[in-house]
Amino acid sequence: MTAAPALSFVKGHGTQNDFVVIPDPTVSVDLTTELVSALCDRQRGIGADGVLRVATAGALVGAGVIDALPDGVAADDWFMDYRNADGSIAEMCGNGVRVFAHYCRAAGLVDSDTFPVGSRAGSRPVVVHRFDAVDADVSVAMGHVRLDGPSAVGIARGRYIGERVDVGNPHLACVVEGLTVDSLAALDLTTGAQLDADVFPNGANVEILTPLAPSESDVDFTAHMRVFERGVGETRSCGTGLVAAASAALHGIGRDAGVVGITIPGGDVVVTVADGAAVLRGPSRLVARGELNPGWAVL
Amino acid sequence: MTAAPALSFVKGHGTQNDFVVIPDPTVSVDLTTELVSALCDRQRGIGADGVLRVATAGALVGAGVIDALPDGVAADDWFMDYRNADGSIAEMCGNGVRVFAHYCRAAGLVDSDTFPVGSRAGSRPVVVHRFDAVDADVSVAMGHVRLDGPSAVGIARGRYIGERVDVGNPHLACVVEGLTVDSLAALDLTTGAQLDADVFPNGANVEILTPLAPSESDVDFTAHMRVFERGVGETRSCGTGLVAAASAALHGIGRDAGVVGITIPGGDVVVTVADGAAVLRGPSRLVARGELNPGWAVL
Repeated sequence: MTAAPALSFVKGHGTQNDFVVIPDPTVSVDLTTELVSALCDRQRGIGADGVLRVATAGALVGAGVIDALPDGVAADDWFMDYRNADGSIAEMCGNGVRVFAHYCRAAGLVDSDTFPVGSRAGSRPVVVHRFDAVDADVSVAMGHVRLDGPSAVGIARGRYIGERVDVGNPHLACVVEGLTVDSLAALDLTTGAQLDADVFPNGANVEILTPLAPSESDVDFTAHMRVFERGVGETRSCGTGLVAAASAALHGIGRDAGVVGITIPGGDVVVTVADGAAVLRGPSRLVARGELNPGWAVL
Repeated sequence: MTAAPALSFVKGHGTQNDFVVIPDPTVSVDLTTELVSALCDRQRGIGADGVLRVATAGALVGAGVIDALPDGVAADDWFMDYRNADGSIAEMCGNGVRVFAHYCRAAGLVDSDTFPVGSRAGSRPVVVHRFDAVDADVSVAMGHVRLDGPSAVGIARGRYIGERVDVGNPHLACVVEGLTVDSLAALDLTTGAQLDADVFPNGANVEILTPLAPSESDVDFTAHMRVFERGVGETRSCGTGLVAAASAALHGIGRDAGVVGITIPGGDVVVTVADGAAVLRGPSRLVARGELNPGWAVL
């Protein structure tokens, strides 16, 4: 057992992808695999899908947490040091960036609505359209999207054709003709997704969505979606999956740009696709703040 | 949407049965179903199996939360106002009482190691053997145990004979001859437990445990156990289930008293059975304290 440091945290979520935010400007917290997995344990710790440490990129380089400034990231940029619930490092998390940006703005770390968030995948420009202590509406530039042609996936007794999409990580986004909100909700995603192993040697996230419906609101189209994350199973939201799905769905109707409102189990987001890149806009909510009890020990 | 009050909380667990503790001596928090279920939501709220409001029994009567002082409960006693994660009321929670007593002691609400905790099921005397800000070792008098004879349950492809036990709520506790730690761990409890509906018209919790092994430590016997809670599925711990299991296992070897150490997925406890009643001793851990963000709204 290792005594954990006295630690302040904020608990927040973006479309129900939830995080323990740890403000650590001096990079004094040793975010070991043990500590992260104990913090994220839902019965024994705080409980979350991941940890977002808040420090500047320069401070993280100085402390040896990251080797060098990633492409486009400045030393003074606030950097999202993201850890999965199992303690492993992930380069990016589209829902996490919204929560991270919300925290930075609400805590007064930045005084502009537009700023870059550093990540291991590079700089992610964000716009905080609106915020208070609890809620925010945040856009994140998610970078390039590459469409790689069709492939198929087996789910339960069904077989679906989708578009392979690379958003930094691999996806198969399946727009299913005739799928309704009700038939989407009735799909059994508990048995996993059988991908073509030759096409996806490292697996992929799989998105299932209804055909795009034209909209008369401030988006061009709407769709409903569920997502299956590799190594995890079904989740309530997946930032890169939303971007992959919107891009594939637009491509499927012969468009390479457009604004798509997507409803997922965790909430509603808007994806804007243009020039081979995408912006994900959605909510962030900061639920509570707290401190670990001093002396709390990592199991 | 209803704005939730500014709310301080402590997050803690007893053998991984976890709780949001809400100190509310003036009974000023309106613990609606909405608020409790939002607090306990693991993605959108704090996340817990239940909420433990801390107030005196007299204050709760004065506020109309309980109609009258339950049997044996004094107005000045600290009272565990327990709510399940879905917002419903439960009379008692054996693991919750340890965490509640730990909180009372650590927060200085009581200055003795021995005190009564009020509950809707009556007074529960506790002994805090040892405590600090994070960890405690607590015994709780769990009241009377009644053995009601054998019944059977089907789990996956197996069929098990157990003893019906009433500990305020109904149980079927099955000591399985030849069951080892490994074969217990390998049991599939995901498919539910098929009880005899004539015997258990309202269902029951089901315990599966290894035969009692004589011990040379400070207990008479040891056993390993898993538990299936009605309406929930498998859980990491169940206070009344531990008491039911120890009582049934002792009865099975012709004893009506004894001290049994039981290992469950959530940790280790000791059950002492004597005179038709039982005492449950086990750990409590207070992980963190915090405040809901003012303005956080119940969904």
